[in-house]
Amino acid sequence: MPWSLTPPHPSSWQVLLNLALAEDIGPADVTSQLTIASDANGHARIEARQALVACGLFVAQEVFRRVDPQIAIEPCCAEADELEAGQILMRLQGGLHGILAGERTALNFLARLCGIATLTRRYVREIEGTGSQIVDTRKTLPGWRVLDKFAVLAGGGTNHRFALYDGILLKDNHIAAAGGVKAAVEMALARAPAGLRVQVEVESAAEAEAACQAGADFLLIDNRTPEEVRDIVQRCGERALLEVSGGITLENLRQYAQSGVARIAIGAITHSAPACDIALELDDRVAC
Amino acid sequence: MPWSLTPPHPSSWQVLLNLALAEDIGPADVTSQLTIASDANGHARIEARQALVACGLFVAQEVFRRVDPQIAIEPCCAEADELEAGQILMRLQGGLHGILAGERTALNFLARLCGIATLTRRYVREIEGTGSQIVDTRKTLPGWRVLDKFAVLAGGGTNHRFALYDGILLKDNHIAAAGGVKAAVEMALARAPAGLRVQVEVESAAEAEAACQAGADFLLIDNRTPEEVRDIVQRCGERALLEVSGGITLENLRQYAQSGVARIAIGAITHSAPACDIALELDDRVAC
Amino acid sequence: MPWSLTPPHPSSWQVLLNLALAEDIGPADVTSQLTIASDANGHARIEARQALVACGLFVAQEVFRRVDPQIAIEPCCAEADELEAGQILMRLQGGLHGILAGERTALNFLARLCGIATLTRRYVREIEGTGSQIVDTRKTLPGWRVLDKFAVLAGGGTNHRFALYDGILLKDNHIAAAGGVKAAVEMALARAPAGLRVQVEVESAAEAEAACQAGADFLLIDNRTPEEVRDIVQRCGERALLEVSGGITLENLRQYAQSGVARIAIGAITHSAPACDIALELDDRVAC
Amino acid sequence: MPWSLTPPHPSSWQVLLNLALAEDIGPADVTSQLTIASDANGHARIEARQALVACGLFVAQEVFRRVDPQIAIEPCCAEADELEAGQILMRLQGGLHGILAGERTALNFLARLCGIATLTRRYVREIEGTGSQIVDTRKTLPGWRVLDKFAVLAGGGTNHRFALYDGILLKDNHIAAAGGVKAAVEMALARAPAGLRVQVEVESAAEAEAACQAGADFLLIDNRTPEEVRDIVQRCGERALLEVSGGITLENLRQYAQSGVARIAIGAITHSAPACDIALELDDRVAC
Amino acid sequence: MPWSLTPPHPSSWQVLLNLALAEDIGPADVTSQLTIASDANGHARIEARQALVACGLFVAQEVFRRVDPQIAIEPCCAEADELEAGQILMRLQGGLHGILAGERTALNFLARLCGIATLTRRYVREIEGTGSQIVDTRKTLPGWRVLDKFAVLAGGGTNHRFALYDGILLKDNHIAAAGGVKAAVEMALARAPAGLRVQVEVESAAEAEAACQAGADFLLIDNRTPEEVRDIVQRCGERALLEVSGGITLENLRQYAQSGVARIAIGAITHSAPACDIALELDDRVAC
Amino acid sequence: MPWSLTPPHPSSWQVLLNLALAEDIGPADVTSQLTIASDANGHARIEARQALVACGLFVAQEVFRRVDPQIAIEPCCAEADELEAGQILMRLQGGLHGILAGERTALNFLARLCGIATLTRRYVREIEGTGSQIVDTRKTLPGWRVLDKFAVLAGGGTNHRFALYDGILLKDNHIAAAGGVKAAVEMALARAPAGLRVQVEVESAAEAEAACQAGADFLLIDNRTPEEVRDIVQRCGERALLEVSGGITLENLRQYAQSGVARIAIGAITHSAPACDIALELDDRVAC
Repeated sequence: MPWSLTPPHPSSWQVLLNLALAEDIGPADVTSQLTIASDANGHARIEARQALVACGLFVAQEVFRRVDPQIAIEPCCAEADELEAGQILMRLQGGLHGILAGERTALNFLARLCGIATLTRRYVREIEGTGSQIVDTRKTLPGWRVLDKFAVLAGGGTNHRFALYDGILLKDNHIAAAGGVKAAVEMALARAPAGLRVQVEVESAAEAEAACQAGADFLLIDNRTPEEVRDIVQRCGERALLEVSGGITLENLRQYAQSGVARIAIGAITHSAPACDIALELDDRVAC
Repeated sequence: MPWSLTPPHPSSWQVLLNLALAEDIGPADVTSQLTIASDANGHARIEARQALVACGLFVAQEVFRRVDPQIAIEPCCAEADELEAGQILMRLQGGLHGILAGERTALNFLARLCGIATLTRRYVREIEGTGSQIVDTRKTLPGWRVLDKFAVLAGGGTNHRFALYDGILLKDNHIAAAGGVKAAVEMALARAPAGLRVQVEVESAAEAEAACQAGADFLLIDNRTPEEVRDIVQRCGERALLEVSGGITLENLRQYAQSGVARIAIGAITHSAPACDIALELDDRVAC
Repeated sequence: MPWSLTPPHPSSWQVLLNLALAEDIGPADVTSQLTIASDANGHARIEARQALVACGLFVAQEVFRRVDPQIAIEPCCAEADELEAGQILMRLQGGLHGILAGERTALNFLARLCGIATLTRRYVREIEGTGSQIVDTRKTLPGWRVLDKFAVLAGGGTNHRFALYDGILLKDNHIAAAGGVKAAVEMALARAPAGLRVQVEVESAAEAEAACQAGADFLLIDNRTPEEVRDIVQRCGERALLEVSGGITLENLRQYAQSGVARIAIGAITHSAPACDIALELDDRVAC
Repeated sequence: MPWSLTPPHPSSWQVLLNLALAEDIGPADVTSQLTIASDANGHARIEARQALVACGLFVAQEVFRRVDPQIAIEPCCAEADELEAGQILMRLQGGLHGILAGERTALNFLARLCGIATLTRRYVREIEGTGSQIVDTRKTLPGWRVLDKFAVLAGGGTNHRFALYDGILLKDNHIAAAGGVKAAVEMALARAPAGLRVQVEVESAAEAEAACQAGADFLLIDNRTPEEVRDIVQRCGERALLEVSGGITLENLRQYAQSGVARIAIGAITHSAPACDIALELDDRVAC
Repeated sequence: MPWSLTPPHPSSWQVLLNLALAEDIGPADVTSQLTIASDANGHARIEARQALVACGLFVAQEVFRRVDPQIAIEPCCAEADELEAGQILMRLQGGLHGILAGERTALNFLARLCGIATLTRRYVREIEGTGSQIVDTRKTLPGWRVLDKFAVLAGGGTNHRFALYDGILLKDNHIAAAGGVKAAVEMALARAPAGLRVQVEVESAAEAEAACQAGADFLLIDNRTPEEVRDIVQRCGERALLEVSGGITLENLRQYAQSGVARIAIGAITHSAPACDIALELDDRVAC
Repeated sequence: MPWSLTPPHPSSWQVLLNLALAEDIGPADVTSQLTIASDANGHARIEARQALVACGLFVAQEVFRRVDPQIAIEPCCAEADELEAGQILMRLQGGLHGILAGERTALNFLARLCGIATLTRRYVREIEGTGSQIVDTRKTLPGWRVLDKFAVLAGGGTNHRFALYDGILLKDNHIAAAGGVKAAVEMALARAPAGLRVQVEVESAAEAEAACQAGADFLLIDNRTPEEVRDIVQRCGERALLEVSGGITLENLRQYAQSGVARIAIGAITHSAPACDIALELDDRVAC
């Protein structure tokens, strides 16, 4: 695991957290107010109910800090750890009103972030030893970009650009508007910010060749078979960093990786990761 | 379809939209600035690449209105419509910079909301004729509660409570804190706001009986087999509205519905709906 | 007093607090800067200058925490306590600049919230022994809904729905649009969220009958005399929860309560509660 | 009426408006969705049910613009107009869902702002011909400062400082901290921003004298009888602008005004103004 | 230095701080993540690289508190202190990731605020002994009003009004609209809030005379030579507070001051102050 | 001029605009209310009082749209145009209250943005024909990053990275933490996001050599003389993109450019650009 798996800066996800707390709690948790004394205390554990890759503990902690700063929180694993069903992500001790008010929001964050990390890890494992990397896309959930991309890192994947502002990717529409691959690449290289590399989407070996000849050193091969990708790797692999996307599933993933392509972009790890099954249980306190 | 499928009030989703635009566009779409003239115009269509239930067009429209108020937007279907692969959700005409800047954010919203609506519809279809309803849960994505719940409606499902403030659900922890089903139900009924109904989670026929005898008329049967549910329906179905949750899949769904239970709660329709495949294509304008 | 008089979750009133501090303090308290050394310290007490029901201490505390986190704050009574003129609500110790900067904002919050609680308590006392409850309305001050409703609880009143989203109340316009009481009730019952009870506004015994026959079990009798209310109670009181509103004053309140109606809704407790007289005095410290 | 009764700049009250809409509508108006077709239209009037001074039409208009920009709004009177019971403040035409969603928020704003304007007008009328002015205080509702103060203007009153940043008022605590009236006035005059006048609170003729001798030309006489005020007016009225506050009611108001004091500060016009009775009725359209 | 150089209340500059952190850090500091262990610690000093007047330490401290609350911060000078090149403003100890993430934002705040304070001090020194004051204008940077004005105080200058709401300044356009100096002054004096003084812009001795005769006691002499100003001082200096603005540079500043004018307004101290050269260096800890 | 000088997306500068309007206008423009009829109309022009490069018209337009949507706005030049003293940037027609309320905020934005563009243009002109580019830094004003960087483009300069998230720059502290240039470059290249280029700060020819040998192709030469820069250009200019910073003034700028270095980074164009002299005048309407 990378030694610098630093959670994103809070200012980049606190507005989402505010939204989440407001939408689930609002003025009051009516049920708890009716049935639980306001000074009742307890211990709780957040528990994996399936094997998963842990992710999002920093958000879950902040959820509970917000609903009740008196709740003591003890993380029982680290971001990116692999947990078995039954293992514990976090322990809580404090007022039951706060623990129950934060429960669903915390679990909803964890379920998605562990879900992405776990699915990413599965893709990463599938291509182990091939030298290829699993890369994410901008197909993240609106409002969740930085969290989704952090979960990809936790899963062992690699982040593509965050947004339209921090990366250049010439896609079909840009190429068409510019008048072809050659023109688009030349325009982009001539005027691109020096710190950003120009990546070009290509849909054939011919386009890949044209892009390289125009000076591109970073290609995105879109919607090609593993064989076609292998062909482009052989032609351009020494001149350019090659990435592939489109039509890739867990079934054909390894074939793509074995083509020699450096990066495999998978939208599904963020747009379609199923939630992990995680639950909060009130319990008697035992050691982590 | 309900004649009142009104999109949620914009003030309930505009903060999420602001987040989404800021995170994907930020100061600038560098690629378009490098390759497309700032006054270039075009037509685009947003197209289903799979069969799906349309949902979220009102958000997608607002995305494009925000990036460029000059873009003309023409929806080509209604919320909750069933579309085949190849059918068009929306047409756009206007500046390419705006269309491309809004593309990913609009598609990400649509892909999730159509995803939820489509999956919900599948569950709803599966139990057609049984008289049961598919009900959602609070397992929505943080920040997305109102949108996720609207997509459930579009899919033909029924909304459970929105949040902790607008519904009462006595779960295991409340029951334990109150000292048992009977005590919890009595406490809740005695003091509940008059406009809110008290729902009680039960895990056995005995608990269901106890809840009904304590006055509850709305139960949530958690983690029981279809047979156990059928048994509870027979005992309590005339005294209480019955809902079931836990361990229900598309495979066993119809069995649960045939138990006679009125409502079937499915967390997966919001927490694990895969994104629909939807794309924006630049094109020559043809009629809807 | 209810053992669960929990102040509303801070996320539901902090935006109002931010507004309040910004509007009264802005960049600086010019007067204090001109006349008081920036390191001057002192003790202060917040004192009732009339008999009142205490309410809003949690907001006042947060006001002072915001202007100067170093100020030590000691509440001297609990929410919902009855105080005599001269009794103390809260003591403060710390920098005079902060105490004086927060003074007016804290007092303005307290004066209104104690005002509502005190007026509510007066209504509650007036009908003691009748079994009726005093219920609030949505006639709260814009921006203050959760605080105003908490003050009603502190006064001994009961909250009606918080908002349009957490309760169903068929009023004259809905009934007219639906084509009459029967149609409106049937439409609402057929499609209402299961967790929300349908309340129907009626203006005569005939309408009350019609509503009950259509299935309603929660009525709001609007603008009737105590005698008319008594008549409706006798006809429908066993079939439905009855609430009354309109034209009710402290003078005729007990007559309404003696009609046997369960709930009496009073807009005035939130829309027209006079402020309580509360002051902050600098002093020498004595025990609470 | 002043020819420049300009409503406060929207940026100074839009956050409060946002809060108000969110708290009352949230995701949806459940009742209207159940009973009224989403394309149903109608006409409505907002009507005075008591004699009142109109105030806040600009806010009410913005409420309806926000819930549905298609609603046509026609104000039927101007800010500060005196209306009889039965007269109309505003007419609306458009979607019923929007009109009913905005109804309560708009009425709540109007009821308070008309309430303040109406009460202020009553105080102003009471002292007609005396030459004194009715002045407000900072005892406004938190979050409402600019609206409350505008309503005072609409009632014919005069605004005191808005906040701690735009006026200097040496009160007892400042005077004590500075070491007496003389020292406080001298410190303040020596260092006050040139554009702000120094006002000094005094509680006796002796203090008034001391303040004037120290250079003050603007006094606030606190908690004195009309006779005492008259005495101070005779001693200092030519050297300083005199304002009086504390213990003033509609009953003794005219006595204070006849003392010759220039300004009479009344906290009650903002902190305790009862709401005006104003209602929205659906109707058939007739001319204003 | 004034003993009440109190930094502006945080609520008046925290939105700007939030903007600043978000724009510079966003989700992550990529470079530090690539090259520095996430648990690496260090000491740093913020150092003047030129002679300057210190200003803005309270903002810089808050920057580091936000990026990492664990960083220990030790200010080594006070607001308004004069520092030589090489002297230290502040020392930090803690995580390198946080120190480096906050570095640029903190320095950018300090560089501008020290820049304003330093330039202001230079103007103040230039007129030492003349009795005139250096006054700022509303030509501050949008978003920075309260910080810029605080830096003027730190430099030894005097604040003019903060904004359009807390001061009255009749300028050419107001005078033209009102129909001349006399009419404008009389209108303003008749209706001005009692706590605000009326200042009038004049462009000749004749206008100054007219303004004084109409009752003005605070003039702004715009765009006149030192001789013309001296003439107006002799005519009106005893009747009115005189301020001068327009065309004043460090070269002719003393001439203006020697005219006897009380206040000299300089836009350049806020709109054109060059940044001070200030750097953050990692170091071994030594005493302040 | 670049044909894609697109103003930054409004969502990236509207919070700053909100701050600016609130801080200058607040509840009201007192002076205009006292002296100008609320329905008075007029024409105004915004005029350059010095030769300048126009920048920021899009912000100024939005200022006036916000204060009064009825004001007609006609820009009279384009972003990046060179104007002589006396030329007009923009004409306005509409309510005087709005024009005067927006005046100072609009001018303050324009004065800074034209100031940056004008100073940048001067640097760009100074090195014309050398092939070097003028590059900005992160020494922009907090809150103003996207606007300041746009003004650099308008001046003919080139943007360096926007923030810590969209570029990699190994500076002295990163190199020290990593254990030297070689280690730092290798670490960064091994793990850097593929779309971002690694730039390395070097302070000698030896370090430049080391960086290139470690694989860096983008250097920042800090604080060297033109001769030293020329030496590094000769050694590494073919292997790496070279940028220089530190100690560069308008006087020695051309010497640096003549060294053959590709990019010259100038902090002063954003941190110390003096404001341009721009004024708003009420006038009789004439053609642009």
